[in-house]
Amino acid sequence: MTSTIPVISIHPIEGLPEILPGDDLPGLLAGALGRMSFSLADGDVIVVAQKVVSKAEGARVALEAVEPTPETRRWAEQWDKDPRMVELVLRETRRIVRRERGLIISETRHGFVCANAGIDLSNSGGKDLAILLPEDSDRSAGQIRQRLAEKAGAEAPGGPEAGAGAGAGAGAAPGGGFRKNTPDIAVIVSDTFGRPWRVGLTQVALGVAGLAPLLDLRDSPDVDGRTLHATIIAVADELACAADLVCGKIARVPAAVIRGYRFERPREEQPAGGAALIRDPEMDLFR
Amino acid sequence: MTSTIPVISIHPIEGLPEILPGDDLPGLLAGALGRMSFSLADGDVIVVAQKVVSKAEGARVALEAVEPTPETRRWAEQWDKDPRMVELVLRETRRIVRRERGLIISETRHGFVCANAGIDLSNSGGKDLAILLPEDSDRSAGQIRQRLAEKAGAEAPGGPEAGAGAGAGAGAAPGGGFRKNTPDIAVIVSDTFGRPWRVGLTQVALGVAGLAPLLDLRDSPDVDGRTLHATIIAVADELACAADLVCGKIARVPAAVIRGYRFERPREEQPAGGAALIRDPEMDLFR
Repeated sequence: MTSTIPVISIHPIEGLPEILPGDDLPGLLAGALGRMSFSLADGDVIVVAQKVVSKAEGARVALEAVEPTPETRRWAEQWDKDPRMVELVLRETRRIVRRERGLIISETRHGFVCANAGIDLSNSGGKDLAILLPEDSDRSAGQIRQRLAEKAGAEAPGGPEAGAGAGAGAGAAPGGGFRKNTPDIAVIVSDTFGRPWRVGLTQVALGVAGLAPLLDLRDSPDVDGRTLHATIIAVADELACAADLVCGKIARVPAAVIRGYRFERPREEQPAGGAALIRDPEMDLFR
Repeated sequence: MTSTIPVISIHPIEGLPEILPGDDLPGLLAGALGRMSFSLADGDVIVVAQKVVSKAEGARVALEAVEPTPETRRWAEQWDKDPRMVELVLRETRRIVRRERGLIISETRHGFVCANAGIDLSNSGGKDLAILLPEDSDRSAGQIRQRLAEKAGAEAPGGPEAGAGAGAGAGAAPGGGFRKNTPDIAVIVSDTFGRPWRVGLTQVALGVAGLAPLLDLRDSPDVDGRTLHATIIAVADELACAADLVCGKIARVPAAVIRGYRFERPREEQPAGGAALIRDPEMDLFR
């Protein structure tokens, strides 16, 4: 098949162990890829589920340590919810958007608007163990990107010694570029959010490193020469959704590699990271 | 690379001409796939942009034929909008959700909540020509699915004659199953919607045929045995997002094939089609 646009492929990263606090997640991802005989290459996008990032970072709370206020307890019991969970959600909340019928939609202290402040009890690694969002998902994405690229470079033919740098293990240059033999990859930390008006959950990008999260087509003429004045595509969210097609909730596949998508590098004059995907409250009609 | 979960691939369908009212879109898609030497197979998901579906169905309006009311004209001029476009948006609207700062977010007469009632002036095929949403996107998806499968079956080795049926050209059985040699494909008609709280547009599935649009994991135990009680994944929307990675806005690639995603067939007891992705207003906190 001939094609001027490359075919995109999505590869599940399988065989990861249960992730525990303090685990070297990039190292475990590199090991799993190695056992799959999969070599990362320039332009690969690695999408990692928020839950394993949070687990590795120890962003978890045992519900037995949470003491709900009397008010929270009353509201939770009215709606048949665990009062400790509700208390934890409120602690992670900067501003409540809706609190109705037992549901809490809020802006988390990180700025994301979602249900339950992004806190999750499923697949948490223990009974009544709550997993919180990563403290800084963009930082998490950046760290995974750097460490994973280093490991991939070290394992590639030639190894890091073939590169120009002196410091072993410092494969990524500070500016975001990479040394020779270290693949120029991007990393997305993704989570599962609901949305108004539509049934079902989809993936969103909480943290992004190495690619521009928004594709701005505003200055591009369409095929009739009309300017596409309102078209900014949330490509990082679309990549997160694509990865979910192989990740699933049940199989233990918390990460995937997307190959063949020609992403744009972050540009200095544009907002970067997953933070760029959060709408300014001033511009939002639904806060 | 060994993998128990199949790798997913996304293939742009290239070389389609400008679509005009009355065009045989499934035939044009089959022709483009033929020129790409791409044979559709069981399990393929074909995602087609709403705009070409609407164009083929003639769902378009010349703005010069639209007469705005005085009230609409006043509001449009206040916000520097084309009053004829605003009038058309209001005609396609069942209920306004927000009308602020020159923006109209409304529930269309089809039930979708989106900006500008889904009407688009870009790449419309002519100056001041507005493209409306398809009259019934699920019906459109069903028709494309049936015709495309028939054409693929006719062109496959063995042809439709090898099948059990008598009527040539009637490859698809009424129940949604297909005869021998006719691939069992799914079709999604997708569009580009914005969303509250997050910057940028993503794809949504307006019409769906041949696959269950929602993946209901509510009865599945997670790896700790905890029931995932609130987890329904909008897989049709995620598939639409994945296809957008190869479709883009500028290159004339209004369709893609996703291969390797193990979708579930629609089940009689579940809501089907793109309509199943529209949240019941009674259950929506943001109407």
